[in-house]
Amino acid sequence: MRRSGAIAPCVMSTLHLAAGSKCPPYQSGMMRCYSMKYCPYAKRTLLILTAKNIKHDIVNINLQSKPEWFLEKNPLGKVPTLELDGRLMYESLVTCDYLEEAYPDPPLYPRDAWSKGQDRMLIELWNSKVAFILNKIVTAGGDREVYSQIITNIPEGLELFETELTKRNTKYFGGARPGMLDYMIWPWGERIPVLLLLWGDETAISKRQFPKLFSWMECMKEDPAVKALYINPKTYVKYYQDRPNGLFQFDMEQVP
Amino acid sequence: MRRSGAIAPCVMSTLHLAAGSKCPPYQSGMMRCYSMKYCPYAKRTLLILTAKNIKHDIVNINLQSKPEWFLEKNPLGKVPTLELDGRLMYESLVTCDYLEEAYPDPPLYPRDAWSKGQDRMLIELWNSKVAFILNKIVTAGGDREVYSQIITNIPEGLELFETELTKRNTKYFGGARPGMLDYMIWPWGERIPVLLLLWGDETAISKRQFPKLFSWMECMKEDPAVKALYINPKTYVKYYQDRPNGLFQFDMEQVP
Repeated sequence: MRRSGAIAPCVMSTLHLAAGSKCPPYQSGMMRCYSMKYCPYAKRTLLILTAKNIKHDIVNINLQSKPEWFLEKNPLGKVPTLELDGRLMYESLVTCDYLEEAYPDPPLYPRDAWSKGQDRMLIELWNSKVAFILNKIVTAGGDREVYSQIITNIPEGLELFETELTKRNTKYFGGARPGMLDYMIWPWGERIPVLLLLWGDETAISKRQFPKLFSWMECMKEDPAVKALYINPKTYVKYYQDRPNGLFQFDMEQVP
Repeated sequence: MRRSGAIAPCVMSTLHLAAGSKCPPYQSGMMRCYSMKYCPYAKRTLLILTAKNIKHDIVNINLQSKPEWFLEKNPLGKVPTLELDGRLMYESLVTCDYLEEAYPDPPLYPRDAWSKGQDRMLIELWNSKVAFILNKIVTAGGDREVYSQIITNIPEGLELFETELTKRNTKYFGGARPGMLDYMIWPWGERIPVLLLLWGDETAISKRQFPKLFSWMECMKEDPAVKALYINPKTYVKYYQDRPNGLFQFDMEQVP
């Protein structure tokens, strides 16, 4: 267990615990998030905990060798999982919507029900049109064949968001500050530069093609919650390149 | 266009319109739902519109030959799609959550944020553990090989819900009345008797194994919204048996 890497409202963050480990003691009333450092879904929940300044601890899970006590808590063994005084909740969007309702400050959805529905619809679109494909590409860990087969499907999804930003004509999807939609899609935004490093392909997703989205990515990096949890592209590359060889470097430090 | 099949708050319901058709005139201020009679996802939205007594019209879409004007409205061509004064929203859970917020009476989620999150988590679990598999089985339209390969995966998912009902010890998941969780999973509950008719297999999902769920299914059939939209198992069988032969009988009457 270590405190390094702990960020603002995060009081404790563990190494990635594996089978045979013991569950770190739980402090009554504390929000706990079971996570994995490189999981984009877990990152959604961590972003909301951080953006809302909710005091929490993070217990990282070695997803290749899940602790027995974790599988007892959540038989699906999935991260993110929230724990609060013995009660458990999982599914990234569900946990984030829960946090929004239980900790309304700052509000991350538009007030108007229709606009809120629009943002939630766009999150689902991102899931199916962008995240799903990006996940396949990065976990292929440098396999150019997989990359070439799939990358052509990405621009169609990204164009929807380029158009949406143009229509809204705001810095963030949420307006002057990032909202729920921004945070829910960011974990994949953070991975887009990884494609360039892994394949040196500047044409697939370029600033020229998606100027608004690229400027959005720069603005997101200024947000305190995003900054606190930021993982640089080189670190992702190292993680994803080692994975196909069976090496899951959950606990490596950031590559400078 | 016809009014037959129109139910309580539904003022108009069309046949399944195909390419080459014209979009029925839209009445200002009216909630419109683009649907397909046998789509379980569209049924979710219709259940909520009905349970909340929201005046609406239904435009049914021939999903095998989508009207050009529908693809202009929603390039993904998916149902359910809600339209309200030129604005569009899709994704079944997103539309239902929107209706819950915009038309809070009767409330369909628990008031407490954590309990609400639990219900939304269970809906996601149903999606991945039950709905996904049942969709594959019924659309196989009587192919016993597909059925045998997949049916064994169903009980694991259903057991989660049997346990949950036992724990809650209520008539419905929502308590004395159906709530959002009940309505979101019902379109597949309605299909469970179809398995028996298609394969005569009484052992896969039996009342003996899931007594609480079977009694829940009976109670659901008493609910006015469920009743208004009910499709009997024989009609489903006819629809699903014809599908693999390229015959999509969107507009057949109920089989008695």
